[in-house]
Amino acid sequence: MAKGKLRIIPLGGLGEIGKNMTVFEMGNDALILDTGIMFPANDMHGVDYIIPELTYLLERKDLKIHGILYTHGHEDHIGAVDHVVKALPSGIPLYATPLTAGLLEYKLRDAGLRDTVVKTFKAGDMLQIGPFKIEAFHMTHSIPDCVGFAFDTPHGLIVHTGDYKFDNTPVDGRKPDYARLARYGEKGVKLLMADSTNSDQDGWTPSEAIIEPAFERVFKEAKGRIMVATFASLMSRIQQVANVSKKVGRKMVIYGHTMREYTKIAMRLGYLEIPESIVLDAGRISSVEPHKLVFMITGSQGEPSAVLSKLATGKQRNLEVQEGDTIILSSHPIPGNEEMVYRTINRLIERGANVIYDPLEDVHVSGHCRREEMRLMINLTQPQYILPVHGEARHLRQHGKLAVEAGVAANHVIISENGVVIDVDRNGVRKTNERISAGYVFVDGNGVGDIGRAVIHDREVLARDGFFLVAVSVDKNTGKLLKAPDIISRGFVYLREADDLLDSVRDTVQQVIENNRNGRRQEALEESLGRLLYNETRRRPMVFSIVNEI
Amino acid sequence: MAKGKLRIIPLGGLGEIGKNMTVFEMGNDALILDTGIMFPANDMHGVDYIIPELTYLLERKDLKIHGILYTHGHEDHIGAVDHVVKALPSGIPLYATPLTAGLLEYKLRDAGLRDTVVKTFKAGDMLQIGPFKIEAFHMTHSIPDCVGFAFDTPHGLIVHTGDYKFDNTPVDGRKPDYARLARYGEKGVKLLMADSTNSDQDGWTPSEAIIEPAFERVFKEAKGRIMVATFASLMSRIQQVANVSKKVGRKMVIYGHTMREYTKIAMRLGYLEIPESIVLDAGRISSVEPHKLVFMITGSQGEPSAVLSKLATGKQRNLEVQEGDTIILSSHPIPGNEEMVYRTINRLIERGANVIYDPLEDVHVSGHCRREEMRLMINLTQPQYILPVHGEARHLRQHGKLAVEAGVAANHVIISENGVVIDVDRNGVRKTNERISAGYVFVDGNGVGDIGRAVIHDREVLARDGFFLVAVSVDKNTGKLLKAPDIISRGFVYLREADDLLDSVRDTVQQVIENNRNGRRQEALEESLGRLLYNETRRRPMVFSIVNEI
Repeated sequence: MAKGKLRIIPLGGLGEIGKNMTVFEMGNDALILDTGIMFPANDMHGVDYIIPELTYLLERKDLKIHGILYTHGHEDHIGAVDHVVKALPSGIPLYATPLTAGLLEYKLRDAGLRDTVVKTFKAGDMLQIGPFKIEAFHMTHSIPDCVGFAFDTPHGLIVHTGDYKFDNTPVDGRKPDYARLARYGEKGVKLLMADSTNSDQDGWTPSEAIIEPAFERVFKEAKGRIMVATFASLMSRIQQVANVSKKVGRKMVIYGHTMREYTKIAMRLGYLEIPESIVLDAGRISSVEPHKLVFMITGSQGEPSAVLSKLATGKQRNLEVQEGDTIILSSHPIPGNEEMVYRTINRLIERGANVIYDPLEDVHVSGHCRREEMRLMINLTQPQYILPVHGEARHLRQHGKLAVEAGVAANHVIISENGVVIDVDRNGVRKTNERISAGYVFVDGNGVGDIGRAVIHDREVLARDGFFLVAVSVDKNTGKLLKAPDIISRGFVYLREADDLLDSVRDTVQQVIENNRNGRRQEALEESLGRLLYNETRRRPMVFSIVNEI
Repeated sequence: MAKGKLRIIPLGGLGEIGKNMTVFEMGNDALILDTGIMFPANDMHGVDYIIPELTYLLERKDLKIHGILYTHGHEDHIGAVDHVVKALPSGIPLYATPLTAGLLEYKLRDAGLRDTVVKTFKAGDMLQIGPFKIEAFHMTHSIPDCVGFAFDTPHGLIVHTGDYKFDNTPVDGRKPDYARLARYGEKGVKLLMADSTNSDQDGWTPSEAIIEPAFERVFKEAKGRIMVATFASLMSRIQQVANVSKKVGRKMVIYGHTMREYTKIAMRLGYLEIPESIVLDAGRISSVEPHKLVFMITGSQGEPSAVLSKLATGKQRNLEVQEGDTIILSSHPIPGNEEMVYRTINRLIERGANVIYDPLEDVHVSGHCRREEMRLMINLTQPQYILPVHGEARHLRQHGKLAVEAGVAANHVIISENGVVIDVDRNGVRKTNERISAGYVFVDGNGVGDIGRAVIHDREVLARDGFFLVAVSVDKNTGKLLKAPDIISRGFVYLREADDLLDSVRDTVQQVIENNRNGRRQEALEESLGRLLYNETRRRPMVFSIVNEI
């Protein structure tokens, strides 16, 4: 690695720093870490998902991007791979552990990007990507084959934890690589970039292991069918359902396209061990008694288009909730989704299901470390500097305070934001004044980036008060209305019951047209109507007018 | 009380049963319990608040409503009083404890309803309202002067807990009336109607008392100003802030109109004890050093129009967040508000504030009982029947299961819904097949009930994909376009960057007009344009057309 300074630029993450993507640079050489998607906030109306803005990378034509490196296979770390690969110069190789590589290849194939090279490595491997020398170390999270990275730079080691918790009894038996972390600490770590997701929670996140006994309790009590809803990529959860299904003698139906594909990949690569004998094709459900069935389904966040929500509203083809079904939500609502999740639960209950969710049983645990694990991470790696990542402002502050308590110098705690360039050189690590454009790109339908703040703002106004439009035809000689105005309005009031209001609108239109024979009629109409509608209803719909002179 | 059967009809509550309003009937005599408002769900776009549908009461002209009885002064129990009083026959008296009465009178005055009689009673009083004989008993919650009711009917006692938790160390020192509850139990309770809000939470809700030491810790560490955000009606919290302010020598500024008015009422009636010497007028802030100030503000749910959110976005007049301010959120997000609350916290932190919220400190506890308290309530009152109220379907089920474990016969647990009439007679308590219309009325601006499902649905569609409208003028003789179509669209795509799409739209319009010389032009245009826009963008805006023949 050249002797120049290293630049770190976190991108992506809706209000979180470096959650979905990070750029590492040495001179003109660059390396990308992760390419994930974000999920829209409730007021980002109509947005399907969000990808990090790539403007900076596209404008830095001088930059040689040597590779894209992946920590693990969750959507918020790999989901934007097709967008990124399409946007950047062709031929950049991807680097991932086998399971992550399998999921990446599936996504690339789906997007018609068959030429992209995905190179696999294993935890413990030393990678040389361009001038970057990186060691991968095994970490535990809620998907197998998860790694963090140690960047061996001329200015010292930079350790990036990726998403992690210290799970001493992980589902796949592969424990966190404490020894390697300790070795980094002994060698000396310049900078620790660490997961801050749960930094406002004391203690230690429970192991995934506590879930299996909870499943067993619920499975043994269930008299009818069982459905377990979780994320398609939560592989260890699928393994646990398989383990318990086998134990209690139930057949397992992997329901829904994505979950089936992901499961296939993980089974083929040896990351899921499900005996063929217990797997049942969805088409053969009727051949098995209800109390011998377990369904794995998606939609645990209440997403309207996923299986769980469709079951709740009776809209899932070929599958209906029955009295006596037991439905387990093996997940927590992501903030913003609570309302939809609880509504879904209530609807399932009203259809006769027994719905089990945390806190009723320990059917889910977070995949992210809590404060005690953060202390352990700092004590193992003994970093000179810390850059809390993967968290909102509130989480970064808490993580930073914890680091100081754990012995990191207060002026070595770097609380930063996406797009702010961080320099690492022989003088240390610091935030610079350089700030690159690091916003979000909304994906809606097949439009990528064609809706921005303006369109979202319009959607917000339309959502609140709707719109009101009048189209009038005016005689160009007399300046009088040729006929009654056409009125179109939606989301404002129920027009059929608003006769009085519509009469006032027609009067206003007539007056405005008569008083404004010389131009400005459109603006005058919109102003007057906006005022009238507000006075009558205290609402502010978007008001439009079309004036045709004939 | 006549010997006929008693009918109970729960109303209100967005997915919760009998949360905001309940009707009790004996023959033609009726009594109403509470008249609260609901807060809109995230997908009820533009709705300010929601009141229970009153159709049933308005249609039952034969019904003599003898009074409206109140449990306590929170918005979800009193907030719709003006709507209800205006809708029902005049002269119906309200019955409330003094603090609740004070808050009701303020609301009635505000709505110009000065003639309404509010009769006050005290916990322990026996009320005779028409043929209804009711005893009020003191309960603890998070506002003083909170009561439950025991209805003495010919078929036995009906005990309604109201909102409650068993707080053994309440802020005002007035403990729950265990003795009276136990006496009911000994006498024999036919039916218990009990708060189910936290029925999925084990243990016992902490006392309000734990908050004061937490405030004290935070107050002592704070170097600058302190701002405490909570609900305007959370009187005990305001008392606690006053207690600690006095102790540490800070002046207290009650900020915001509603909070000031509520505080005044509570002080006048003796429910808040704040020494005059520590209260500071908002106009005199500059006369006191920052580290001697505490502000009480509203907006702890992230409501965009309240003080806290305006501070977060820098839009509050005369008040700005400063580096070194400590801001306490003394509340939990109501499900659905999490995203806005956390966004607000992050913004405040980015403006330099130190933001304290649960779980960082014990600065809030729920006002509702948990499972252990529910068991105690059942063991004290020993009801023959239980009707879990104040909860969503998932809470009612849990409360019901708990009741069975506590000894209530499984077929005496009544899980019901709003609008379902429940009969109480000598044969017992049961759900009937009678179902009255018990929906919600949306209040938006000054419109009450003029937006219903159709308008909300339109707002949802507009929020997701916007609208697209073309207006065309056609020569009535040739059937040809007289000029290029007018196009108006919002919330769909950014039109200025959609030249290709607009060209396709113009081509389509021309084709459709030329191919449909004989009518159906409007429908044909909307169909063709909808298809074109979907094919090009995978979005489905509302499509409108106006065709003028000239």
